[in-house]
Amino acid sequence: MVQAVQRAVQILRELASTGPRLGVTELADRLGVAKPTVHALLRTLEAEGLVVQDRDSSKYQLGPDLVSLGNAYLDTQELRTRSLTWADQLATRAGEAVWVAVLTGDHVLVVHHAFRPEGAVQILEVGASIPWNTCALGKAIVAFAPAAEREALLATQQAVLTGASITDPRELARQLEEILRTGYAIEDQESAIGDAGIAAPVFDRSGEVVGAIGIVGPVERLLAETARQDLAVAVRETARNLSRDLGAPRGSSRRAIA
Amino acid sequence: MVQAVQRAVQILRELASTGPRLGVTELADRLGVAKPTVHALLRTLEAEGLVVQDRDSSKYQLGPDLVSLGNAYLDTQELRTRSLTWADQLATRAGEAVWVAVLTGDHVLVVHHAFRPEGAVQILEVGASIPWNTCALGKAIVAFAPAAEREALLATQQAVLTGASITDPRELARQLEEILRTGYAIEDQESAIGDAGIAAPVFDRSGEVVGAIGIVGPVERLLAETARQDLAVAVRETARNLSRDLGAPRGSSRRAIA
Repeated sequence: MVQAVQRAVQILRELASTGPRLGVTELADRLGVAKPTVHALLRTLEAEGLVVQDRDSSKYQLGPDLVSLGNAYLDTQELRTRSLTWADQLATRAGEAVWVAVLTGDHVLVVHHAFRPEGAVQILEVGASIPWNTCALGKAIVAFAPAAEREALLATQQAVLTGASITDPRELARQLEEILRTGYAIEDQESAIGDAGIAAPVFDRSGEVVGAIGIVGPVERLLAETARQDLAVAVRETARNLSRDLGAPRGSSRRAIA
Repeated sequence: MVQAVQRAVQILRELASTGPRLGVTELADRLGVAKPTVHALLRTLEAEGLVVQDRDSSKYQLGPDLVSLGNAYLDTQELRTRSLTWADQLATRAGEAVWVAVLTGDHVLVVHHAFRPEGAVQILEVGASIPWNTCALGKAIVAFAPAAEREALLATQQAVLTGASITDPRELARQLEEILRTGYAIEDQESAIGDAGIAAPVFDRSGEVVGAIGIVGPVERLLAETARQDLAVAVRETARNLSRDLGAPRGSSRRAIA
């Protein structure tokens, strides 16, 4: 490991989580590193456009080139580029917003967001990071993940975002079994009060799960007895079509009842 | 400058521009650095989530944490958070897509994109980077930038994206003078054939230009004699309202005829 690079990334993370603006002294304290070292790292990051020094306060904040790099990552995601049309079709069919996500560590990262047709002002959620156990997208991915990865994620401390967030590993394991059977996952206000989600896994040409696609919206609309089944079918069909687009062999979700 | 950090960022840029996937040898060649050094940097970046190693090919690609960092940057942009409602209102009023951008180096970075109301499938352009001289957003910012910065940008080699891209520094300087007088900038197919833009500068509480807001769309709709003037007024009013929201003193764009 290259310590200078580790520290540089630590600085970026501190600015992302604690920021927006931190001075050299504050950063040196947080990292437990000498001020001259922090200063040299900041000047290098600034020269590279990854941090910017505030004119007035002399403090540092994240720089615009991080957005270009993040976008370059999104553009390399075949899941994302292939999902654009499918996500739009699903949003139209369901009349709800659609998210596409990948699993990174124990969170899902939203890589695409198709807005709800004819909705009010909507905040773009691309880049949002959500604990896997609190959302349908995360549960759909983990249910179909390799056994070792699934067990490891079940064994860790689970995030709590609302009173409905599920932390009991046995209850989570039971839900994952059900997702394997039905081919879709449900979130019932586990990440935000009033919000629900329905998601299904997406597979690539190796037949492995690469992410999930699903709808998000008010619990009243998504989980009403009358709507829920139709929406789940729409989500599952979309996920299957997207998987085929990615070259997934038929039967990738073979453990699910089609 | 910390060389290890410079090289780590160089690796990220290579993956962003040349990628999506590069091997250790390819990267070592491109950077002119020994393979063991590149390997150590890649392993560090991988441990930090900024690159990911492809299972099958063993090559490296950008990692998902770059998106989180990019998003953290966007969230710290007061210009962006304050612009959400104004951008939506302008999109509704003009019936066109609205972009908000900041200047970074000699490019503008799109930090917010409000979709055109009731349009077809639209690709989100947040994170797009466009040479300043080829777009209305860039010209609006540079016209109101401090003289030294403006002169420096005029003195560099200008980008050419279409046959209409303006590269003559005298013609650009003439346009900037006109933008100072009218308070808005026009792009006529200078970044893409068929596309036009109308943008106006946004100022912060120090009275300095921090970015621009503008509409983008087909040249037939935006620059038709009948529409152009009304659209320019709408853009300029929106920019002025957004500037006031950011605490800009009245008369920040004083050199413009209000």
